[in-house]
This record gives sequence, structure tokens and C-alpha cells, in this order.
Amino acid sequence: MNDTPNTPASVGKIMLVGLGPGSHDHLTARARAAIAEADTVIGYVTYIRLVAELVDGKEVIKKSMTEELDRAIEAFDRARQGKKVALISSGDAGVYGMAGPTFEVLFQAGWTPESGVEVEIIPGASALNTCAALVGAPLTHDFCAISLSDLLTPWPTIARRLDAVAAADFVVALYNPKSGRRTRQIVEARRLFLRHRRPDTPVAIVKSAYRPRQRIEFTTLENMTDCDIGMLSTVLIGNSNTFVRHGLMVTPRGYRNKYDVESGATRDGEQAGRSLSTGLTGWLAGLHASGLCAAELAVLHRLPEDYIAALLAEPRDTGDTADEAAGAEA
Amino acid sequence: MNDTPNTPASVGKIMLVGLGPGSHDHLTARARAAIAEADTVIGYVTYIRLVAELVDGKEVIKKSMTEELDRAIEAFDRARQGKKVALISSGDAGVYGMAGPTFEVLFQAGWTPESGVEVEIIPGASALNTCAALVGAPLTHDFCAISLSDLLTPWPTIARRLDAVAAADFVVALYNPKSGRRTRQIVEARRLFLRHRRPDTPVAIVKSAYRPRQRIEFTTLENMTDCDIGMLSTVLIGNSNTFVRHGLMVTPRGYRNKYDVESGATRDGEQAGRSLSTGLTGWLAGLHASGLCAAELAVLHRLPEDYIAALLAEPRDTGDTADEAAGAEA
Repeated sequence: MNDTPNTPASVGKIMLVGLGPGSHDHLTARARAAIAEADTVIGYVTYIRLVAELVDGKEVIKKSMTEELDRAIEAFDRARQGKKVALISSGDAGVYGMAGPTFEVLFQAGWTPESGVEVEIIPGASALNTCAALVGAPLTHDFCAISLSDLLTPWPTIARRLDAVAAADFVVALYNPKSGRRTRQIVEARRLFLRHRRPDTPVAIVKSAYRPRQRIEFTTLENMTDCDIGMLSTVLIGNSNTFVRHGLMVTPRGYRNKYDVESGATRDGEQAGRSLSTGLTGWLAGLHASGLCAAELAVLHRLPEDYIAALLAEPRDTGDTADEAAGAEA
Repeated sequence: MNDTPNTPASVGKIMLVGLGPGSHDHLTARARAAIAEADTVIGYVTYIRLVAELVDGKEVIKKSMTEELDRAIEAFDRARQGKKVALISSGDAGVYGMAGPTFEVLFQAGWTPESGVEVEIIPGASALNTCAALVGAPLTHDFCAISLSDLLTPWPTIARRLDAVAAADFVVALYNPKSGRRTRQIVEARRLFLRHRRPDTPVAIVKSAYRPRQRIEFTTLENMTDCDIGMLSTVLIGNSNTFVRHGLMVTPRGYRNKYDVESGATRDGEQAGRSLSTGLTGWLAGLHASGLCAAELAVLHRLPEDYIAALLAEPRDTGDTADEAAGAEA
């Protein structure tokens, strides 16, 4: 950087720190070091409290919940003065946290990565990971996170997302499920899910994970709206294979598709380390061999007709001959 | 626990440890402590290498990629002998990691939480969090994780999920995007996404996050299949609002729906700390006031007709009067 009169004497820095669930056990070494390095720590009052012992002697700015843009503005203000600022979020700063709002504020203010204020994001485990760890293994397979907060997002957008992932059988983590003011969104989420999922689909509600007031409740899709849910809760809705046994919520990875669980042997037509017989290659072969038209296959597989038609129109793959040499699936 | 001849002298334990990205900086204190506590450490050879300095003097069992069930079986075997076993995964053990397979093996073997082998899951930041932290703030809003591996999952299931989340405008992280053998799944993912998303949708491909061979490439939905993607890569596909500026990929949180970004003032009809005018309450009012029928509203809002019909049929809410006292949105 050239030494011009406008160059700040020292380079300021904004560190977007994900605290994870907030217990010190679950802070990463880098997160802890970032807070130690900071001159100023800014965050929602509850998060500041989580790291109270680590902020002694530092400037501490506590903000209330909806003042996210303010936090980012104050962080930038200090950093421009050459200070190191830790902007803290629970969980991961990139997941409904401070990372996005901070960049929006920085860009709006004309900041660029070369302008003398450095920005570092320190990842942490998000609520869906920490809550999942307390109830078993609910995430195992494809999952989503949806926020039920409509403070910044129109309801139809949220509703379309809920309906889409319920239909496509994802495990779903609902963030911001309910508040003093927003009580009906969780009811609507249940309504949309019940269009596709069994009423007895396992649901876990975890509040204040890894903190003193931690509370875990197992329930079902049908009954979840009768449970205690608040802003400190994360709601985990299982997919159609998720089960609860011995107080643990588990989503299978799919071994039963390939292996006989009693004997451990692979099922007829399946091979360890290879795609399923209904994986892409085998499934494509089946499409061609079926003799059915695109419209019929689209209904059978619940996929768009234009997609099936495009696949049928392509020349057949010669198979994975080039891949054979690549060895077992990594 | 009663002292019967069959009770083991010491209680064994399985600790399912999420290593995060693998660099020691990003290990949580609990993850590090769990490895230190272990008599035996079991994991895929690459993950063992990441914690090589921490496993001195311990029994170390290295496994290859598809031997997940074997790792769980060996862990249970040692734990039944009273040992403490760290079963390690990169990222978070609950996300396409060892947690699900381990519980499946344990239940199959007749284990219960009271049977003398304790199980603890130690959460870590998953690849989607760590990769996101390196490229900016792509996750900010609703997101999903989908594995393109069809070793245990039929292709139509994966395809339905890809199509659903592309249509519903999620940010999407693709895990296991490509391997030596599986080269076409990423092509199909692109094809399905292009049914709904602009070809210039930002995509980031991150390989070996926070490790020596880390590599980040920014591309687009259209071009991503030309890029170097492998089993150490995570592919992040933005939603329709995601943008790239100054080398950073950012998904907006939605402030523009509520605030004028130039002045910072709330837009007409909007209030800080309250649901948008198109949040659930306002949107419902709009449905009723529109004079349109369920079928027309369903097309307009791209939501199921039966859902709209059910909403129209309900008596109107008297509004959030009970919630007014609850104070500003938390």
C-alpha cells in the first residue's frame, strides 16, 4: 500500500465471529483468539453475555435484536479508525448472522477489500448442527434451513420454500420459528408440511443448546404447534425416513438401499463403492429401456416432463469406461 | 446401573467428533479435548492425517472412504471393552458424517443409551459454513445441502430435490459434487437448475477449505461444469439475489424489502421490528381483499390452490392485538 496522506496509520479489521452455541467448550481456537485480539466487541446483548469473561478491558457495544445494520455501521466506524473489531453472532456468522448485513453496509459505504479495512469471517457451528448433535443424527441426509421470520421476507416466498422442501423430502431446520408477535407462521409451516408428510413425522425442538437453560422436546409434525417454541428454539423436522428410538432422532443415510442390514451383504444388483442400480447411470438406462414416453415417466418419477424428454433425446452414454480406471468411489 | 456379572468394569464411550475444516485453528475446545481423552481414534485416512499431532500414543485405525459402517463397528467393539473412542469426521459429524451410520450400527447391534456405552456428538462447522466464510456471505438467507452421491440414494430422489430448491430460490451447497467415477451428476444438477435460474447465477467452488491446498474459484451456473471440481470441493450456488462484488459473493438478507438503502429510512408501509407488509398478516389481508378466487391467487403467488383455499376459508384474524403487548420483534 502506498504511503499517502490518506492511508490510515494502522489497518483496521472487522472479524465476524461465529460463537457456535455459546458455551466456551464449543468456541474454536480462532474464534477465541479473534475476541482476544479485538479492541472493540459488538453484538446482540445476549451474545455479549455469553463471552463476558473474554471481553474484559475492551470496548463493548451491546445492541438489541433488530439493530443489525447499526452493529455493522459501528463496526466499520471503529475499523476505519484503525481498530480491530469483533462483530459476534451466535452459531455461524454466515447463517442468518452478521456476515451478510455487514457486507451490505460496507459496500453501501464504498468499502473495497483494498481500502484499508480487512474483513475476516470466522466460521462456527450453526444452530442446526448444535441442536442436531443433542438429539441424535437427524441431519444425516439432505437438509435445509428456513427462517420463519417475515420481517424482511414476504410470506409467499417462505411458504413456497416450505412447501417445496416438504414435497422433496428434506430434513428441515426452522430458524426464528416463533416470537411474541409472530405466532402464526409456525402454524402455517405445519399446514404446508402436512400436505406432504405424515402427521407422525418426528420433530425435535431444542432451546438454548449447550446453555444452562437447554431444553429438548421430541414431538411430531401434528403436535409441534402445541409445544413451547420461542426465539431461542430451533425446530428440526425429520424426513420420511427419520425415526426416533431410545430417545434419539436418527435419519438414515441410505444403507438399506444397498445392503441387507441383517447379513451386511450387498443386495442383488448392488455393489459397494459404486452408484446404486437406481443411481444416475442405471436409472437413465431404465428410462430408455422402459418403453414409456416422457409424460408417463415424468408422472412415475415425479420429475418435470421437459427434463425427462431432454434425457431421452440424448444419445446413450457408453458407460463409465473412462471412470473404471479411476478406482473405487471416493 | 446394577452391578451384575455382565456389567463392564468401566464405561466405554464413543465420541463422534466434527473436526470442522481440519485446521487446528478451527477445532473447538471440546473437539480437541475429546481426541485427547480417547484411547482409540478411528477415521478416514485423510481426517486422521489432519490431527496427526494429536493422536500420538493412541491406537489409530485408518479406514478408506466407503468403510463407514466398518468404522462404526470397530468403534462399538472397542467401546464395549470399556475404551474411549473418538470417531472423527471432517466438518460436522451429523452432516453426511459418521453420526447417522454409527447410530444405525449401534441400534442394529442392540445398543441402548443405558447399556454401558455412552455416545456423545461434538458438533463442528460443516463444509458449507467454512466454504461460505472464505467467499463472503453467500448463505445469509434460506439454504440447503444436497449430496450428489448416488451410492446410497436413487437419482430421481436427488433430482427432485435439486429441482425443488432451484425453483424455490434457495442458496444451495452441493456436497460430493463429483468424483473420478461420478462425473455426470453435476451436469444434471446444472441442467435442473437452469430450468429456474439465470445462467449467470453466481457459483463458488471451494476446495480444501483452510488447508494448504485451498483453492477458490468463482464462476456461474452456466460455466460451473467447466471448472475443476472433485471430492474435496463444495459447490455453492447463489439464489436469485446473490451477487459478486470485489471478489466476494454475498446473498442479501432482505433489507431492501424494508429500507431505502440510500437514506436508511423504512419504505412506505413498513416498520422496523415488525413483519413486512407482505409478511403473513399483511399478505393474508391482501388475499381476502383481492377479490380473486383461490385458483387465480394460486397462480399469482405460485402456491398450491388447496393451501390458498384453506386460508380463504378461515375466519379473518382479529390482528395481533394480543401480541402488541409483547413488544418489538425479538
